[in-house]
Amino acid sequence: MRIAILGTGVVGTTLGTAFVRAGHEVRLGSRSADNEKALQWATDLGAGAGTGTFADAAEFGEVVVNATGGLVSVEALTAAGGHNLARKVLLDVSNPLDFSGGFPPRIAQPDGGSLAEQIQATFPDVRVVKTLNTMTASVMVDPRSLPSRHSVFVAGDDAEAKQVASTLLGSLGWEPDEIIDVGGLVAARGLELYLPLWLSLMGSLGSAAFNIQVVRG
Amino acid sequence: MRIAILGTGVVGTTLGTAFVRAGHEVRLGSRSADNEKALQWATDLGAGAGTGTFADAAEFGEVVVNATGGLVSVEALTAAGGHNLARKVLLDVSNPLDFSGGFPPRIAQPDGGSLAEQIQATFPDVRVVKTLNTMTASVMVDPRSLPSRHSVFVAGDDAEAKQVASTLLGSLGWEPDEIIDVGGLVAARGLELYLPLWLSLMGSLGSAAFNIQVVRG
Repeated sequence: MRIAILGTGVVGTTLGTAFVRAGHEVRLGSRSADNEKALQWATDLGAGAGTGTFADAAEFGEVVVNATGGLVSVEALTAAGGHNLARKVLLDVSNPLDFSGGFPPRIAQPDGGSLAEQIQATFPDVRVVKTLNTMTASVMVDPRSLPSRHSVFVAGDDAEAKQVASTLLGSLGWEPDEIIDVGGLVAARGLELYLPLWLSLMGSLGSAAFNIQVVRG
Repeated sequence: MRIAILGTGVVGTTLGTAFVRAGHEVRLGSRSADNEKALQWATDLGAGAGTGTFADAAEFGEVVVNATGGLVSVEALTAAGGHNLARKVLLDVSNPLDFSGGFPPRIAQPDGGSLAEQIQATFPDVRVVKTLNTMTASVMVDPRSLPSRHSVFVAGDDAEAKQVASTLLGSLGWEPDEIIDVGGLVAARGLELYLPLWLSLMGSLGSAAFNIQVVRG
């Protein structure tokens, strides 16, 4: 599958590498086409890896992954271009963390909604799925690095888009019973508001290499 | 141990019953001393169970459990009386869920902090521990009702108070390795903001009989 990844931070490059290794074609998008980090990433990976602007990447991708910082995601997606995103599945893995008031950060959700819903409202014909934002990048792409089963969530209003998301999660090593559909995109509120607990856990465990498993009665 | 439980809802009565059965003496506090539900609860349980006003219960307890609705907790604790709470361990198991705007509820945290921190600021010499608010009442008191290990969190600024909380959790059946200290009371923000995800999970699983386990790498 052709996958656009918007954002060249740890999450973007880690996901991009994993998708290339899983056999997908990835274009890593950034603000400018001559982003050195992105170019180096593509050189290191070789076949299957390319770079470009947000718009280049979005035009290329059948699926688009928003791995930009949550506070600049709408701006980055606007730069990618609504026409390049139209009708595509958008995996929103970002977190709107506002550290301007120090630690712990505030979750910058607009009007009581989620960033994912704001993205959906801004680009109504994009099929937004919130997923993978509840763990660190290394766990996203290597779920078997933890010693037992754990959970990844998908939220979105388009059932087919959530199926595409689940298939892509499967290509990263997630087992079907680890993927939990938490409902419509309104559930992205809870996925984003989970981050403060995640940050507390990271602090108390002294490591980001953890995740939660939903245990059912 | 003498335990005051403030609040006669499902959480208060379920915790009260479990603590009596674990050998503690419980006084269930409510707005008025002739609360029929509370009186019936005490009659059903017999020895070890008593009732009274918020102030009666708080005066009686060595440990006080806030099981009132989060939106009225400060009011209930004020009725209990700062002098009856002074220097005691207060287990805050409440959630500030504001359903006035419909579902999903808003988490009504004051000024970006948590309800638990607001309680601590209002009663500075009380030793507040946030715990147990991340699951349904039946799981709080019967952790072995789920098929594998799972997690309960404690947050608070007083290490000794968190130790008391852990001992009481142990008397409900929680194993030491299931109890995760997530840090100071500031971590209560994340514990309260987890509720929207919990509510989404309850909706998608069709049951409240679940919890999360932290899986470490």
